[in-house]
Amino acid sequence: MNVEVRDPLVLFMPSGKRGRFPIGTPILDAARQLGVYVESVCGGRATCGRCQIEVQEGNFAKHKIVSSLDHISPKGPKEERYERVRGLADGRRLSCSATVQGDLVVDVPQDTVINAQTIRKAATDRVIERNPAIQMCYVEVDEPDMHKPLGDLDRLKAVLAKDWGWKDLRVAQHIIPEVQKILRKENWAVTAAIHKDMEFSRPTVVALYPGLKNEAYGVACDIGSTTIAMHLVSLLSGRIVASAGAPNPQIRFGEDVMSRVSYVMMNPDGQGAMTAAVHQAVNDLIGKVCAEGGVDRKDIFDSVFVCNPIMHHLFLGIDPTELGQAPFALAVSGAVQGWAHDIGIDINRGARFYLLPCIAGHVGADAAGATLSEGPYRQDKMMLLVDVGTNAEIVLGNKSHVVAASSPTGPAFEGAEISSGQRAAPGAIERVRIDPLTYEPKYRVIGVDKWSDEEGFEEAAKATGVTGICGSAIIEVVAEMYLSGLISEDGVIDGALSASTPRIFQNGRTFSYLLRDGQPRITVTQNDIRAIQLAKAALYAGTKLLMEKQGVETVDTIRFAGAFGSFIDPKYAMVLGLIPDCELTEVKAVGNAAGTGALMALLNRDHRREIEREVSRIEKVETALEPDFQQLFINAMALPNKVDAFPKLAEQVKLPPRKADSEEAGASEATPRRRSREERAARRGRS
Amino acid sequence: MNVEVRDPLVLFMPSGKRGRFPIGTPILDAARQLGVYVESVCGGRATCGRCQIEVQEGNFAKHKIVSSLDHISPKGPKEERYERVRGLADGRRLSCSATVQGDLVVDVPQDTVINAQTIRKAATDRVIERNPAIQMCYVEVDEPDMHKPLGDLDRLKAVLAKDWGWKDLRVAQHIIPEVQKILRKENWAVTAAIHKDMEFSRPTVVALYPGLKNEAYGVACDIGSTTIAMHLVSLLSGRIVASAGAPNPQIRFGEDVMSRVSYVMMNPDGQGAMTAAVHQAVNDLIGKVCAEGGVDRKDIFDSVFVCNPIMHHLFLGIDPTELGQAPFALAVSGAVQGWAHDIGIDINRGARFYLLPCIAGHVGADAAGATLSEGPYRQDKMMLLVDVGTNAEIVLGNKSHVVAASSPTGPAFEGAEISSGQRAAPGAIERVRIDPLTYEPKYRVIGVDKWSDEEGFEEAAKATGVTGICGSAIIEVVAEMYLSGLISEDGVIDGALSASTPRIFQNGRTFSYLLRDGQPRITVTQNDIRAIQLAKAALYAGTKLLMEKQGVETVDTIRFAGAFGSFIDPKYAMVLGLIPDCELTEVKAVGNAAGTGALMALLNRDHRREIEREVSRIEKVETALEPDFQQLFINAMALPNKVDAFPKLAEQVKLPPRKADSEEAGASEATPRRRSREERAARRGRS
Repeated sequence: MNVEVRDPLVLFMPSGKRGRFPIGTPILDAARQLGVYVESVCGGRATCGRCQIEVQEGNFAKHKIVSSLDHISPKGPKEERYERVRGLADGRRLSCSATVQGDLVVDVPQDTVINAQTIRKAATDRVIERNPAIQMCYVEVDEPDMHKPLGDLDRLKAVLAKDWGWKDLRVAQHIIPEVQKILRKENWAVTAAIHKDMEFSRPTVVALYPGLKNEAYGVACDIGSTTIAMHLVSLLSGRIVASAGAPNPQIRFGEDVMSRVSYVMMNPDGQGAMTAAVHQAVNDLIGKVCAEGGVDRKDIFDSVFVCNPIMHHLFLGIDPTELGQAPFALAVSGAVQGWAHDIGIDINRGARFYLLPCIAGHVGADAAGATLSEGPYRQDKMMLLVDVGTNAEIVLGNKSHVVAASSPTGPAFEGAEISSGQRAAPGAIERVRIDPLTYEPKYRVIGVDKWSDEEGFEEAAKATGVTGICGSAIIEVVAEMYLSGLISEDGVIDGALSASTPRIFQNGRTFSYLLRDGQPRITVTQNDIRAIQLAKAALYAGTKLLMEKQGVETVDTIRFAGAFGSFIDPKYAMVLGLIPDCELTEVKAVGNAAGTGALMALLNRDHRREIEREVSRIEKVETALEPDFQQLFINAMALPNKVDAFPKLAEQVKLPPRKADSEEAGASEATPRRRSREERAARRGRS
Repeated sequence: MNVEVRDPLVLFMPSGKRGRFPIGTPILDAARQLGVYVESVCGGRATCGRCQIEVQEGNFAKHKIVSSLDHISPKGPKEERYERVRGLADGRRLSCSATVQGDLVVDVPQDTVINAQTIRKAATDRVIERNPAIQMCYVEVDEPDMHKPLGDLDRLKAVLAKDWGWKDLRVAQHIIPEVQKILRKENWAVTAAIHKDMEFSRPTVVALYPGLKNEAYGVACDIGSTTIAMHLVSLLSGRIVASAGAPNPQIRFGEDVMSRVSYVMMNPDGQGAMTAAVHQAVNDLIGKVCAEGGVDRKDIFDSVFVCNPIMHHLFLGIDPTELGQAPFALAVSGAVQGWAHDIGIDINRGARFYLLPCIAGHVGADAAGATLSEGPYRQDKMMLLVDVGTNAEIVLGNKSHVVAASSPTGPAFEGAEISSGQRAAPGAIERVRIDPLTYEPKYRVIGVDKWSDEEGFEEAAKATGVTGICGSAIIEVVAEMYLSGLISEDGVIDGALSASTPRIFQNGRTFSYLLRDGQPRITVTQNDIRAIQLAKAALYAGTKLLMEKQGVETVDTIRFAGAFGSFIDPKYAMVLGLIPDCELTEVKAVGNAAGTGALMALLNRDHRREIEREVSRIEKVETALEPDFQQLFINAMALPNKVDAFPKLAEQVKLPPRKADSEEAGASEATPRRRSREERAARRGRS
């Protein structure tokens, strides 16, 4: 009888990759053979400590494997030395030294979790699998030999080929004059930083250090028109070391992107000045995250950027004028990479930059980043992804097809063009409720802990004052005015109500709503409502156009990306008709999804190829060229919409009946609105 | 009966490549399919005129082909238009427009001939087959389309892929901000300069021009310690447009390379200053060749450099100190390439530089260039290739094996350390003959048309004066002194002869030979002869060591590279024992072979791979580590050598008998030398 003796089975988590390996195989080698990414800088010398893993004990019946600590070799002298000198957490082992002795379930610690800082808790915490572009490789170079007079650099390349398998390695030009001194400094031991994502080029040594260099960092950066946000990440552990933001100093050249394009058109040095400003700001922000994380900026070897097309062009030193006029031609739409040094980013001399591809002239690398982060193309559900700014960038799709467009929402959602509008800052009203019977408002103010109708609100608000309405509250106040019958579905403030409530008052030829009487007086004017209607109609019409392209009547899930999306209440957004009908639980704010996409591309270069591929597949829709857009826009001016029903919303919110519906019902005096007006009068009488 | 109808046969000359093509095939396409390099910028639009060929008429029986002008299509309207507008020489056709109509012998004009300027006529004129790293590609880019919002750059890449087959093309970072304007300037027609030799990287667009750009140049440069020499070449036609030289300004830091290394060791800023000096000199020389050739320096896209290891390091900004001491470690020995801009060479912003590999710490890229040019590895004969400077670089080998070494000849051959020595310049004695009977010399002076014993010499020499002895004459005067018996095989001036001739006179404890009495007085001292003996012994011992490595007693052919080699008479070099015995007809001066090698690498990137491969195969010999070297050196002090015979030389030149030989023959009074002395006395008596 033959007894088949099989090699032990090793299962790596979380990837789930598995394979059989002879007893005595170092676990690091097993991981490598399976394509499981385990970091190692020292190349198996048990000195860098980057290759740590944990063994899980137990009977993993599902995987038909019993894992035990007895199935891994005990610590040898090298590993013990590492533990003594550098310390090793409980349960952790160095996979370069520990060998397979039996079946094992091995946990590869993944430190990069897209966490609450990056993305709202509502979304499931996600792990970004690491496969960064930078690999640190420690080697001991042969000393010069007169019999074989290979140059220092050539012997370095030879040992990198021998120890690490790098063939045809390139060496960045700026390293060549330094190589002699670096090699001799620590007795021919050096660590090479190798960049593996060089755009159709062989991997390249981009930095070289004497001895063991056990650190390498990267930055992921979202250059918004208003704010620049950055993560500093360890490329060796995946840990987010620091995150920070700063205003985009280009604001002094123009509040929104189109005014910055105008500035360039009007000023011969405009592009240069704005390019310099954003480079300076990025450099300053790098200084900030480095200070916070205790990291030397020269230890940053890779950087990934996302931004809208105009920021993208200005960042690269490209004149953005073409983007200000039809046909909105991008100078470059594909991903761009190069030496960070060449575009003035002050990090390591050999560091690279990578800019995600742009989708279209108005749908930039930031939308690509959000698309990478949320991945409509990765799932079956029809996902709507919107990022609202001066332009709304709209992506709609699923596994089979993705379409994208931008729509000119204008700055109303950001508080501009609104009489009492302001940025989200202490003193700004951020939440509003209106009593549907009395029309009395209550509100919350940023920096104040109470609602305005609670005891001690005025006292508490003294520090900040109540200074205006920010974006989220603009949505809410208009939606509440609609729900309470203060405005019609056409958005007209009902002047007749000025007789019943002092909150409605005449203001020239139209009426306004008084939200707060004080210094300043905060009102919602008919113009404010028109501005919101125009903005939301643009967003909705763009979405609707993409739904028509996809041939769908509804969407399954909605993602609000960006700061605006983080603060608005999905319910009110839907009441106003910013977004189509959808289960409210499926409407999620995902924060700076563009920045998360940049982080993913930084930590795993496979994500770069993924988004390059997906962006090339996305169907781009130019709203201005679509004959239907105008009609969709007109329909969308109504609240929530002239033709589209919102049945799922209606299950949760009592929507006022439509004029058309009620007219069709032959209602005249006894319309629901009239009825409710009577109810309210009754209630006022009671109160 | 089947009649086999075969497609016409097309034979391309000078490559000899042949193939059958259907009637109607454009000749350019036929060439491409066979891998025959025919330039074309416009991509078959009959506008650039670069694809010209000639048809040979006649019965080429050897090739079994009858070629006739009837076998090529008549000129069509496009070609006629080109002829009308730009002109077309008799017999020339545009191969993009002319099609195959029958059997053809097609001549592809090769304009790059290594001609007399580059290499002495003695060597056969050679044609360098062209395959430059730069290709100019004209395309017409799609205009922007809002429905397919690809960026300008992306549409450029797409058409380069479609029209020219470039896949995964890279675009140099510095072009990106310019791409919009360039594309729009000539209505979306552009020419891309594509560099195809990017060190393990994909071909790269390195420059971009509006419309048709029908010019591209390169420079090949030899940076010698003393002189920098440069060729400016059209990469599209192969024509050498201009050649020029200039002194190496580093001379002010040190006459020879070792004194420049000392300067660096002594001065903290020494390396930077010398690097800046050589860059400036190269830039100035580029200005000179461009002015001479009427070329804009911004139209230079590629550059190839050769130099010795210390010049190599200084050129790249590398500290050369390591090369001044054992183990003479090169910072980099392999070929180096990069952006010319990054090392301060002021040509096109996207131009590249390529430095040939170094062979060893004392055998540089210049020796590699000479090796590429002379190609010992391409032939069966055992070839000795020597380049004499302060160090002699010696390469010996054939198809099966090549060995190389350097030997410290010192500066004597260059006229330094010689009492009346000077550079080769007007006024310098360059040829010397000594009458073996009277010991009277005659000589020629640079800049003077007569020998010194001819009528009117003194009158003719008034303009220049007679100022000293240059390298070639030092060899000759010592050899002639030996042949005439003025010095022994040990190099000792025979003081006894001072009684017979006033040309020999006592000078301290030794004797000297008076070559010319005048202002200045030009003499050859015992020290001068010692210096020459030391230098020639070093060269010979190095050569002999390599012959031992190869296991050969003789060499088949000898090449003298460099300026020194161009002026010395091979016979005298052999009489002195600089080089081993060889048929005199097989000793050839090849001029600046290093520069020719640079030119070859510039015009054909296959030559880069060739020399990289060959240099890695060369066996490097470090003379200082070889136990035999000392004995070989001592043997080589004698004239021509203590142990080696020169039978082939003896067939042409009557060599004095060896002391050893004559002693063995038991000669005493009646030695040949004595005899000849008596003859001479008799002759004096007669004259």
